[in-house]
Amino acid sequence: MASHNTDANCIFCKIIKGDIPSFKLIETENVYSFLDIGPIAKGHALAIPKYHGAKLHDVPDEHLGEILATLKKIAIAQGVENYNILQNNGKIAHQVVDHVHFHMIPKPSDSDKEGLVIGWPAQQADMAELKQLHEEIKGKL
Amino acid sequence: MASHNTDANCIFCKIIKGDIPSFKLIETENVYSFLDIGPIAKGHALAIPKYHGAKLHDVPDEHLGEILATLKKIAIAQGVENYNILQNNGKIAHQVVDHVHFHMIPKPSDSDKEGLVIGWPAQQADMAELKQLHEEIKGKL
Repeated sequence: MASHNTDANCIFCKIIKGDIPSFKLIETENVYSFLDIGPIAKGHALAIPKYHGAKLHDVPDEHLGEILATLKKIAIAQGVENYNILQNNGKIAHQVVDHVHFHMIPKPSDSDKEGLVIGWPAQQADMAELKQLHEEIKGKL
Repeated sequence: MASHNTDANCIFCKIIKGDIPSFKLIETENVYSFLDIGPIAKGHALAIPKYHGAKLHDVPDEHLGEILATLKKIAIAQGVENYNILQNNGKIAHQVVDHVHFHMIPKPSDSDKEGLVIGWPAQQADMAELKQLHEEIKGKL
């Protein structure tokens, strides 16, 4: 079993440990999943690495490999066709609990009253700027 | 190498094959990543399974295991602290290209003019309904 970083004050670490009850769905060696009790659509679920990290870049790769397959299985079990997978890093990016968590949010209709509501402020693509940025990032990969 | 389902008419399959150019970042056995040319924030990138599937539940598990680690590496290379990971399934859930793709969208500020804008229509949690739904889903897992 991979070693799991934990935080005694973290609500999600307490859920994983069983100290706080949850509507558990799938549990694997490295992943725990459960229904969100503040759903924005029926069937809204979360999958989290057991390893405590505040943001995605804090969690080692070996704790991330099963998360998408877990979310997929939950979507299939519910028979949902339309849904969003979302993981937020940082308060200004809508993160509320500081333990990495992935949402599987069904989108039963195009109503703004249920499911994720997305704003997409597309910018004019500047190919010269993109090319320069590409070189910069590649240099750091 | 895992066998990759492909679709000759899919723009992302053409990018993977190299028939359409892209600002490629990381490529692994099963994953291809590149800069989004219609960014909603500087550094907006995509990671896709090489296996062609329209929605997450169409892609076999073995093609999903490296995606989050890839997105993580791209975020780290850019040094971004605040960002969203997003994957949309279905037109009403904001999916535009019918080949599974995960966005890594930096959120440089809380402005609605750059990065992902999220609406969160939280509902009143009904514990009895959640309990019943939990039983239903568990029966199908």
